Amino acid sequence: MNVAHELAPARAQLEKLARPLGFVPTMGALHAGHLRLVEAAAEACRSVVVSLFVNPMQFGPQEDFERYPRNLDADRAKLSTVGVDLVFAPDVAEIYPTGFSTRVEVSGPSRGLETDFRPHFFSGVATVVAKLLIAAMPDLATFGEKDYQQLLVVRRLVHDLGLPVEIFGAPIVREADGLAMSSRNAYLSQTERAIAGKLNVILKEAIAHVRRGASLSSSEESAIDALREAGFSDVDYVAIRDAETLAHMETLLRPARILAAVRVAGTRLIDNMAIELHSH
Amino acid sequence: MNVAHELAPARAQLEKLARPLGFVPTMGALHAGHLRLVEAAAEACRSVVVSLFVNPMQFGPQEDFERYPRNLDADRAKLSTVGVDLVFAPDVAEIYPTGFSTRVEVSGPSRGLETDFRPHFFSGVATVVAKLLIAAMPDLATFGEKDYQQLLVVRRLVHDLGLPVEIFGAPIVREADGLAMSSRNAYLSQTERAIAGKLNVILKEAIAHVRRGASLSSSEESAIDALREAGFSDVDYVAIRDAETLAHMETLLRPARILAAVRVAGTRLIDNMAIELHSH
Repeated sequence: MNVAHELAPARAQLEKLARPLGFVPTMGALHAGHLRLVEAAAEACRSVVVSLFVNPMQFGPQEDFERYPRNLDADRAKLSTVGVDLVFAPDVAEIYPTGFSTRVEVSGPSRGLETDFRPHFFSGVATVVAKLLIAAMPDLATFGEKDYQQLLVVRRLVHDLGLPVEIFGAPIVREADGLAMSSRNAYLSQTERAIAGKLNVILKEAIAHVRRGASLSSSEESAIDALREAGFSDVDYVAIRDAETLAHMETLLRPARILAAVRVAGTRLIDNMAIELHSH
Repeated sequence: MNVAHELAPARAQLEKLARPLGFVPTMGALHAGHLRLVEAAAEACRSVVVSLFVNPMQFGPQEDFERYPRNLDADRAKLSTVGVDLVFAPDVAEIYPTGFSTRVEVSGPSRGLETDFRPHFFSGVATVVAKLLIAAMPDLATFGEKDYQQLLVVRRLVHDLGLPVEIFGAPIVREADGLAMSSRNAYLSQTERAIAGKLNVILKEAIAHVRRGASLSSSEESAIDALREAGFSDVDYVAIRDAETLAHMETLLRPARILAAVRVAGTRLIDNMAIELHSH
């Protein structure tokens, strides 16, 4: 039993009691970014469930489903340090039993960007997220802003189907050099890791260009050039978009986001950042 | 408080207490078939919710969405006679608010038959049924066997998404001449109504052919001929299929179903019947 003497912590405690269950869907291979999602759920909810499931439906046939890192023991050890009440680590056959025939498709925010390069990705995400949210029926679920377009697709899905869950988007957690944490960073050799660290720097430079008055399209293009010069083997996209809808923008009249997907040798990396409308 | 002195009614009462909520999704324009669905829900559940919603997503652009009969007052009066606790009659904007972007697609049992003639029908049904079941979170939901393929699609959807609801399929309720009850029967002129009444008779004859040893395909074909002779303006299909999967069958080694869709002038009618494996 907690005794509160001030209003703010009493209210925080009441809000937490009103949200019995927090849920953090992950594909495992947990890093500090995932643990931050768990902490955010634990701060807001009485109990926390974390799912560990490498979802085959969101991988294309040429993608890294087989290779994707899996380490249940290490994941359990990490989760034991942050107060998780239940770990749900289903087999593929538990989520997709024989005869499984259902796909959840979200258009709107899923159009373009990731979909241009991973056409079945968001349908796979929406299907498994719908199924996991229906199974857990949490009060709150946390998703990382690292997968920014995915976060918007999940918000749309939850709103459209009327799933009774609050979606919390948690900020990106970065390495010392600014590289966004990702389970796929484990694929990088030392040389590739050095190149990968330049993605966030080049995106910050593009934001600086925009803030100095450069057009959005020229800022995107110079970022693409800079990424190629920095040693990225491919640039899927660098795009400055409406932060709420991912619609194309001509000028910064609404909150914007810069989003990028690049490749370093065989590894695909994504990152994104807010573009503040006004200088601070 | 009920007092039971025998085991069977006591068990029925306990089962009913264990299923607090029954749900009957309808498009309104209620007839005796719908009321039978409500009674089935009321027999099995403590409370019953009926939704009345003409779902635009399941109508094609050339279909009868605008014309579909709507009569909320008459529906409420009918429901008041069968013990319904809540009627949910949302506007289109309540179910599909601005920006709605989600579709639930079920392949498997939705392939062929109705889908050949109404390609977006089951996606529209699956989307609204998923949304209504998530909203109501009932313990049991009843659907009519009249829409037999739809019943299989709903069962598949509920199983695939893990929705915690039991699906009960209720037998077709028929008029005196055997015509399956349907809100669309209201479209029929007196002449058309007389023709419509022959559909069930011809399907029974096809079953009799099969049971006398005729091949499934010749029984389908002679039913199609008989329907055309009886005055139906078009026959979308007559098909004898596996009753569980709707797969094509060569012989009657598994439970089968005969399904048909026909047109009388501008009105499309469907019907179906079980084909028993053994004579009684």
